[in-house]
Amino acid sequence: MFPYEHVIYFDRASKIPVYRQIAISITNAIRNGILKAETRLPGSRELAKTLGIHRKTVIAAYEELDAQGWITVIPRKCVSVAAHIPSLKPQKWIAGDIPASYENDLNLPFRIVEEHIADEDAGSVPEIIIDDGHPDVRLSPIADLLKTYRSLTSRKYAIKSAHTGTTQGTLSLREALVSYLSVTRGLNSSVENLLITHGAQMSIYLAAQLLLERSSRVIVGKPNYPVANKAFEEAGAKVIEVDVDDQGIDTDAIEIICGKERINAVYVIPHHHYPTTVTLNVERRMKLLELSKRFSFAIIEDDYDYDYHYGSSPYLPLASAHHRGNVIYIGSFSKILDPSLRIGFMVAPKNFVAQCMALRSVIDVSGDGYMQNALATLMNGGELKSHIRKAKKIYHRRRSFLDNLLKEKLEKYVSYVLPTGGMAIWIKLNPAFSLAQLALNPRLRISKIDKERNAFRFGFASLDETELEQAVGLLETGLQRMEGGVANQITQR
Amino acid sequence: MFPYEHVIYFDRASKIPVYRQIAISITNAIRNGILKAETRLPGSRELAKTLGIHRKTVIAAYEELDAQGWITVIPRKCVSVAAHIPSLKPQKWIAGDIPASYENDLNLPFRIVEEHIADEDAGSVPEIIIDDGHPDVRLSPIADLLKTYRSLTSRKYAIKSAHTGTTQGTLSLREALVSYLSVTRGLNSSVENLLITHGAQMSIYLAAQLLLERSSRVIVGKPNYPVANKAFEEAGAKVIEVDVDDQGIDTDAIEIICGKERINAVYVIPHHHYPTTVTLNVERRMKLLELSKRFSFAIIEDDYDYDYHYGSSPYLPLASAHHRGNVIYIGSFSKILDPSLRIGFMVAPKNFVAQCMALRSVIDVSGDGYMQNALATLMNGGELKSHIRKAKKIYHRRRSFLDNLLKEKLEKYVSYVLPTGGMAIWIKLNPAFSLAQLALNPRLRISKIDKERNAFRFGFASLDETELEQAVGLLETGLQRMEGGVANQITQR
Repeated sequence: MFPYEHVIYFDRASKIPVYRQIAISITNAIRNGILKAETRLPGSRELAKTLGIHRKTVIAAYEELDAQGWITVIPRKCVSVAAHIPSLKPQKWIAGDIPASYENDLNLPFRIVEEHIADEDAGSVPEIIIDDGHPDVRLSPIADLLKTYRSLTSRKYAIKSAHTGTTQGTLSLREALVSYLSVTRGLNSSVENLLITHGAQMSIYLAAQLLLERSSRVIVGKPNYPVANKAFEEAGAKVIEVDVDDQGIDTDAIEIICGKERINAVYVIPHHHYPTTVTLNVERRMKLLELSKRFSFAIIEDDYDYDYHYGSSPYLPLASAHHRGNVIYIGSFSKILDPSLRIGFMVAPKNFVAQCMALRSVIDVSGDGYMQNALATLMNGGELKSHIRKAKKIYHRRRSFLDNLLKEKLEKYVSYVLPTGGMAIWIKLNPAFSLAQLALNPRLRISKIDKERNAFRFGFASLDETELEQAVGLLETGLQRMEGGVANQITQR
Repeated sequence: MFPYEHVIYFDRASKIPVYRQIAISITNAIRNGILKAETRLPGSRELAKTLGIHRKTVIAAYEELDAQGWITVIPRKCVSVAAHIPSLKPQKWIAGDIPASYENDLNLPFRIVEEHIADEDAGSVPEIIIDDGHPDVRLSPIADLLKTYRSLTSRKYAIKSAHTGTTQGTLSLREALVSYLSVTRGLNSSVENLLITHGAQMSIYLAAQLLLERSSRVIVGKPNYPVANKAFEEAGAKVIEVDVDDQGIDTDAIEIICGKERINAVYVIPHHHYPTTVTLNVERRMKLLELSKRFSFAIIEDDYDYDYHYGSSPYLPLASAHHRGNVIYIGSFSKILDPSLRIGFMVAPKNFVAQCMALRSVIDVSGDGYMQNALATLMNGGELKSHIRKAKKIYHRRRSFLDNLLKEKLEKYVSYVLPTGGMAIWIKLNPAFSLAQLALNPRLRISKIDKERNAFRFGFASLDETELEQAVGLLETGLQRMEGGVANQITQR
């Protein structure tokens, strides 16, 4: 007799009802060719006895299998495996559970995007994380946002409206944004020029996918926000790097390149270039606009950091100038409220927005309409404005506080230029010290390190004064220890 | 004297402070070539008089322009436009405001994804929207979800953890999902096999981008979920359609095609095929797995509708069978909780998930970590399970209720097969009546119409009994009117 007791597994402690476990076991046995088509199965009484369970449980399992077409039940006569199960090549039965198929690799050809994926941050959370410039979520009006979100989900009208029209972003968020961009940036747009995305990166990706192809060339700063470069490479374009100095990207160099080869797009981060935090000066802004006109290239203006400028008002975006529609303007709320809140935007001519929408609907349909409407409510009620005003003051203070701390504690180890805005200071470590080694401290995590330049972005916005002191303290201790090590090595010679 | 009063505009009622409005006007004039480099500007006293404003306002504007490098101020001597402003081609001054650049089209080459973008749903909300199968958000535990979200944002640890590791999805959601998939689907996976996306569509897009290229061929059902086809076309692949009958996709036809040409992937919706709601039978499931092995193609299994099956338990996914890792399994929470909640997932071998993550980080970095953790809390606390149990009962009742209504009111106009699960009935209109015409009723919106087949999906889950009656009533009235029209035409002959 067939060893059902070895084929059918169940665990009374499992969350899955026993009858389903039995049905699954039998299904697996059929799938594996152990039980062939039309094989007669034991009667319910017999199987119940073999397995030491109640007969009703077996009946329930058989009913389930019957309903799903795996077996044929002729009441009071017999139970057998259905006739039309294609017989797979029988396999040797492996005692124990079926091995998980997902333990295998996928052995079909597929595209490799990245040779080595960096390990995700380990599960343990260190005392201090130095990010590359995140807002302090503790200051953000998240509670207000969620209160509105919640009230929206309980209103009938909102339920209907949140379902529709969200590929472009909800109308109310686009309306609020048109007014916000006009007031803060002198940017003259309409709801048709706006696309709400999951953040600045998605706007870059969409623009890259539509503007660039295999033969295209795009100019970027060197160094540059690395994920933007990846988006351009993903579109198949050749990425041409142009130096970024203390006034921003070198527009004279761009002019020379444009004279030699066809350039399709230039990507700039005019406020607080990533990673070096430089602001693009006025002369170069003008020049860039002029070049864009002369050589017919699109400007992808990533202005993610516009709202935090501490000296004067920030420069108006290139997108606010007279550019005849060839500036794709990109911004995000992740830097204003919460990096976890995935809402960003693109401002572009209507014909381009329409195509971005078409592509976006293929990528992920749409965003979270409730969250967008809740954000619109926050903007219309003035809470966003007053949050930015408050946060700006606090971040300004934190920047100065960190500046003083760095001067006091780390002057001999680091160099930097205090940025006029943004949420991070670009800090270069003196060549005698290794940043990679410094970052090994388990009590401290530096989230983005540029090993090539022995430098990192010290995000000061998300840490309060005590935390900044703690972070600098941990850096100081590490550097002193390294210095000791260096001194020891010298002494030993 | 230069007509500053015609160049400088300000509006005291505007939200922008007057001094900034003045600074913006002057900046625009410089940008447009009206004010050339080194042009001397009037003194603050003089300009204040010309414009009829306070002198301090002019000083503030000049300070702003100075700080931004637009002008040079020599205190107590003179103010002039900065020397290093490249002179753009002067343009004729247009009275009134600067025209918005975003009124122009983008006149550079870019890729056209879709020739004609369907109009977004009009602003007015009709009495009834018949969707193509959405959950009823009013039943969903959104309040609980948001309460958790809110509490997470106020905890220090959660703030840190929500920032990190979210490209793959937060660890706690992946852990909760591994257990959920095991209990509900017998799917044996680990957290490394899981990628959290913005919904089923993003999982399809990622799989398509990696598995397919220009020379690839993918088999889909006919008719099929149209946005999936678009994702495959976007990846450059050739989409081959295979008929879907009342037992699901025709696997014999797939076998014949595979014998003739190399097939890279087969896309299936085993539970309640979109749009026809058919469930793939057991025999064909087995056959498909066998073909996948024989012809080495990937199966993209879109099981978005798994959780709602009303007869017996749903069939186990292909992904739960012995498939050696070539099934990419796709699911979503949009259909369980709320279409606006953008959380879906992919289960795949680790090597494939790693590459999907790499691509996903280029597309939009990550999802909303707080929302993911809040969902994990809901799953771990059993609220999701009891929500599904409750919703399933209610949707089952609504399906029967709609079935009765259709028989009672629309029998002579429509035909359909009652689906064994899901959230919609696929309804064909008799050829004498035009669905397109029926959909013109402003009181009723049918969100997805298949004009070719004169058919639509009647989503019954999101409408309660009263609303279902209302919807069928509106359809009945429309059809009776059409019938009258037809009768009239006949009489008139």
